[in-house]
Amino acid sequence: MHPPSEQDYVQQLSIDCVIFGYKDRQLNVLVPKLYFQGDFWALPSGFVYQDEDIDEAARRILQDRTGIKDVYLEQFQVMGKAGRNSRAFLDRLIELNPELVARNPENLREEPTIRREYDWFIRRFISIGYYALVDLTKVIPQKTDLDQSIEWYAVKHLPQMIMDHNEIVEKALETLRLTLDQKLNAFNLLPETFTMKDVQELYETIFDKPFARNNFQKKILSMNALERLEKIYTGAANKAPYLYRFQK
Amino acid sequence: MHPPSEQDYVQQLSIDCVIFGYKDRQLNVLVPKLYFQGDFWALPSGFVYQDEDIDEAARRILQDRTGIKDVYLEQFQVMGKAGRNSRAFLDRLIELNPELVARNPENLREEPTIRREYDWFIRRFISIGYYALVDLTKVIPQKTDLDQSIEWYAVKHLPQMIMDHNEIVEKALETLRLTLDQKLNAFNLLPETFTMKDVQELYETIFDKPFARNNFQKKILSMNALERLEKIYTGAANKAPYLYRFQK
Repeated sequence: MHPPSEQDYVQQLSIDCVIFGYKDRQLNVLVPKLYFQGDFWALPSGFVYQDEDIDEAARRILQDRTGIKDVYLEQFQVMGKAGRNSRAFLDRLIELNPELVARNPENLREEPTIRREYDWFIRRFISIGYYALVDLTKVIPQKTDLDQSIEWYAVKHLPQMIMDHNEIVEKALETLRLTLDQKLNAFNLLPETFTMKDVQELYETIFDKPFARNNFQKKILSMNALERLEKIYTGAANKAPYLYRFQK
Repeated sequence: MHPPSEQDYVQQLSIDCVIFGYKDRQLNVLVPKLYFQGDFWALPSGFVYQDEDIDEAARRILQDRTGIKDVYLEQFQVMGKAGRNSRAFLDRLIELNPELVARNPENLREEPTIRREYDWFIRRFISIGYYALVDLTKVIPQKTDLDQSIEWYAVKHLPQMIMDHNEIVEKALETLRLTLDQKLNAFNLLPETFTMKDVQELYETIFDKPFARNNFQKKILSMNALERLEKIYTGAANKAPYLYRFQK
């Protein structure tokens, strides 16, 4: 791993991405596991080049992990507590990864400190949170130099991540729920065509509660956001559902 | 003015505050004019101390300009374009404020550059936008060392501000409109007690369109956010409106 150089990046600023994908009534988040010894999961993160817009940086980080461009992306919150880079996390990281520790050979009794080239890991970072909504079937998760592995995890069964990363996911989900009706962005989680039943299942999964079928359908259609396509031929013609497509 | 020292603040990070106040069917923003020569208006801004949460920093900046604590505050957007600190602004600033310019006496033909102690003015800053909703009647606008004056301006008649500050106000207003129904935060713009007519006028002002009286009243009351108090005694008892208070 190459720590960011002082010159290249805006210092003390990071980007954390919550990449949501949906499949079979389950909302998932793409979470890499850091290549360090120990079970350190962390959201896909990165830094901002001095000549790069922050939105561009977020797109770059997303593309590195998903392999796809043109992902639906929303900035949702800045994590800016002074003490968010917890000492507990650092202590455990050092304990399990002794190669990160610098010791002064003159004084073996001093506190272990992290080696110069890794000290950005313990600095204060103000992190801009972005969430992405992707069609999970189009993503082939990609490891970067930083990762041991990268997997989809159900929102309800996320691993314990470093620092405040679990809270970041909570906040992203809260924002998604809060503005979903105005932004009509949930459709980005579906394949290009879908049935009304697919939409209802998706909404029920995101909000974690059931909706009455008739009201739901009426509400969705009243938004004038969907284009109705042909019916799916199932053999039982009268039961065949319509396919829809989102009109961007 | 004292430029921020390298050690004290998180570098390249600023906070810009859009302070909304409401009075007589007009939505206003509190805008200081910089003490430089020339008409440079800029949103109330500041920096983040190394040991300070970003929300604390925003509260400090707000208190400096409004004199009040416990202001309703929402983070709404990070302005992070690489080129947002425009050269045009800098050129005009230097033109009107020659004392900011450093000239190399060895070479009088070189481009004018800004003096070292002011060079943070031309650096790239990533700015976190906060909007505040205040009861305008409680605010006594305060000038800081940076300001020549500070005034309320109608959102519809804002002065041309530096950099992207006018766009920042637009974005704040857009966010306020988008989440007002879920956050029920508009009441922070009113005095402690108000009539239903006051609420309707406020909403009409924020959304810049009329609402039908009956529907509006029904919608507001269905939110269960208001506590009904006694009637205002006006002499014509049957026309006296109820007073309401927001239940936080």
